[in-house]
Amino acid sequence: MNITILFGGSSYEHEISIVSAITMKKVLKKSNLQSVFIDALRDFYLIDSDKMKSKLFSSGEYKKSKKVQLKKTGFFVDGMLSSKPVESDVVLNLIHGRDGEDGKIASLLEFYAVPFISPRTEASAISYNKLYTKFLAETLDIKTVAYEYLSIEDERHIEMDYPVIIKPVRLGSSIGVSIVRSEAELDYALDIAFEFDTMVIAEKYIDRVKEYNQAGAFTSQWELSIVEEPQKEEFLDFETKYMDFSRDSQVLSADISDKLKIKIQDCFKKVYEPLFLGSVIRCDFFVIDDEVYLNEINSVPGSMANYLFDDFESMIERLSQNLPSEENIVIDYQYIHSIQSAKGKA
Amino acid sequence: MNITILFGGSSYEHEISIVSAITMKKVLKKSNLQSVFIDALRDFYLIDSDKMKSKLFSSGEYKKSKKVQLKKTGFFVDGMLSSKPVESDVVLNLIHGRDGEDGKIASLLEFYAVPFISPRTEASAISYNKLYTKFLAETLDIKTVAYEYLSIEDERHIEMDYPVIIKPVRLGSSIGVSIVRSEAELDYALDIAFEFDTMVIAEKYIDRVKEYNQAGAFTSQWELSIVEEPQKEEFLDFETKYMDFSRDSQVLSADISDKLKIKIQDCFKKVYEPLFLGSVIRCDFFVIDDEVYLNEINSVPGSMANYLFDDFESMIERLSQNLPSEENIVIDYQYIHSIQSAKGKA
Repeated sequence: MNITILFGGSSYEHEISIVSAITMKKVLKKSNLQSVFIDALRDFYLIDSDKMKSKLFSSGEYKKSKKVQLKKTGFFVDGMLSSKPVESDVVLNLIHGRDGEDGKIASLLEFYAVPFISPRTEASAISYNKLYTKFLAETLDIKTVAYEYLSIEDERHIEMDYPVIIKPVRLGSSIGVSIVRSEAELDYALDIAFEFDTMVIAEKYIDRVKEYNQAGAFTSQWELSIVEEPQKEEFLDFETKYMDFSRDSQVLSADISDKLKIKIQDCFKKVYEPLFLGSVIRCDFFVIDDEVYLNEINSVPGSMANYLFDDFESMIERLSQNLPSEENIVIDYQYIHSIQSAKGKA
Repeated sequence: MNITILFGGSSYEHEISIVSAITMKKVLKKSNLQSVFIDALRDFYLIDSDKMKSKLFSSGEYKKSKKVQLKKTGFFVDGMLSSKPVESDVVLNLIHGRDGEDGKIASLLEFYAVPFISPRTEASAISYNKLYTKFLAETLDIKTVAYEYLSIEDERHIEMDYPVIIKPVRLGSSIGVSIVRSEAELDYALDIAFEFDTMVIAEKYIDRVKEYNQAGAFTSQWELSIVEEPQKEEFLDFETKYMDFSRDSQVLSADISDKLKIKIQDCFKKVYEPLFLGSVIRCDFFVIDDEVYLNEINSVPGSMANYLFDDFESMIERLSQNLPSEENIVIDYQYIHSIQSAKGKA
């Protein structure tokens, strides 16, 4: 299969997207990979697979690669007299953060009828915003940790007891996130968070909470990964998470009861279907008193959470063959025709 | 000022977008207008202003116009040896429904750094979905009519008393909407609504409710339209609304107290700022017992609600000069550099 890996982007997570893309190259061994890089200026480059090393990008050498344009049905290398398509059956969106997870790339690919693996625009916009993720969970009857939200113009005060965790509503990878143990620390944490967003949420911070990750997709059947209990520090900072994006070997399943595993999987399925059809996502859950809480939806998870799947590549292949299709809207101009008739102009 | 009107799109409201665009031509008299049409296949055409008549589109004759491509900074006419930009200071998104109001066009224009008047991706995705609009109102402490939601897989039953109004969550212009007066009529109304969406909301139907429309934008100041009390039928069907999109002369203000007017305007401002910066939207409110309820956000209102403004064209000009700018993200490769150093490869 011809898979085009799309990575980079105008995003705070641009660099970890490069790490994810390099990891994908190690994982997708049977496929014929094409790599399309979006640089900080949002120019598209077709990167030679043999040159996929981080230095190519950090040195700026990637600029010697061929530029490509996104047009109807895919990417094209424009020549003087003709435009040559990049051979591709599916685009795998590996852009983390802005562009990749906020709905922009999904919009571009859907608009241009390019088959792609990623959440669609609405799913992206909802999961990119931690507050809307809370609302989504509510409609699905899924528990989340108690929270409040503050806009940059609100009074700097929260109702709930400390400690709390302060998060900008729209960023991933722990950027701008702080744990606040007392009211005295709140102001500083808000300063940091409001550097990245006009809105933040404050969530009850639960010490030593059990955390479990579940990734998956729906193809013609559920394709659920193992449940992982991620390594636990107070919370993952950017650099720790960064290294996490280069994982390429399978990890062990969490040591949990079948009953809890099924609860986690049921929650995952509720989140995924139908909103996230066409994507591989990873949901991070908390378990408190045997109840499952949705903590986060990673709509473009680090290295696509490949390390949680038994046979990631085959799953990607099945998903490519089961992508949701946009509804076909027939435009027959019947209203314009009828108005023209009424006006005697037809 | 050079304004590019973008209209058409792959949308059930494709034809009313054409009507809106023709109306804009009558309203924006001082500006230098360019018209870019997106046809049902999502090809872009540069339409000669003199030819802007509905028949050009319904007859298919538009296909003789020059094709344009969306690239960085704007639209371009590609020639054999060069690519000529369409002169434009700002794009006015006039696409109603899918593409224009679901976040796709906003994503495309923002990605390619094209200045544009329209809600951005997140605002579009939220206001395109009636259920998320309800959540947005909740976060803003704005009342909405009592509702329930049903997915296509749910049992066909609602808790609230009849009559109710059934709406697909994602479509505008009354498509798929029915009033249901008893349980016996529910099944048929749901059949219709589920033809257009996998999720519907049922809202309490309030007979003879007072309805008021408020349009506006924020430039360097609030630019609020008059408050209109729209003509009232049971509810507007598609054809009635369709004619409504060609309005180009100013209407009279609703006969309401200053106190109520201020309440409506305050609600509008809460909805608009900061989510809808860069756009002209129209909010439709209900007033029940002197309380203001948000009924709907029209993120790309018919003919841009020009008929509600005293000097629409000047407002559009001021808005063009006060568009929100995307945050500039600097990518300095410091993480990749530090990893390369750690590995001894730097």
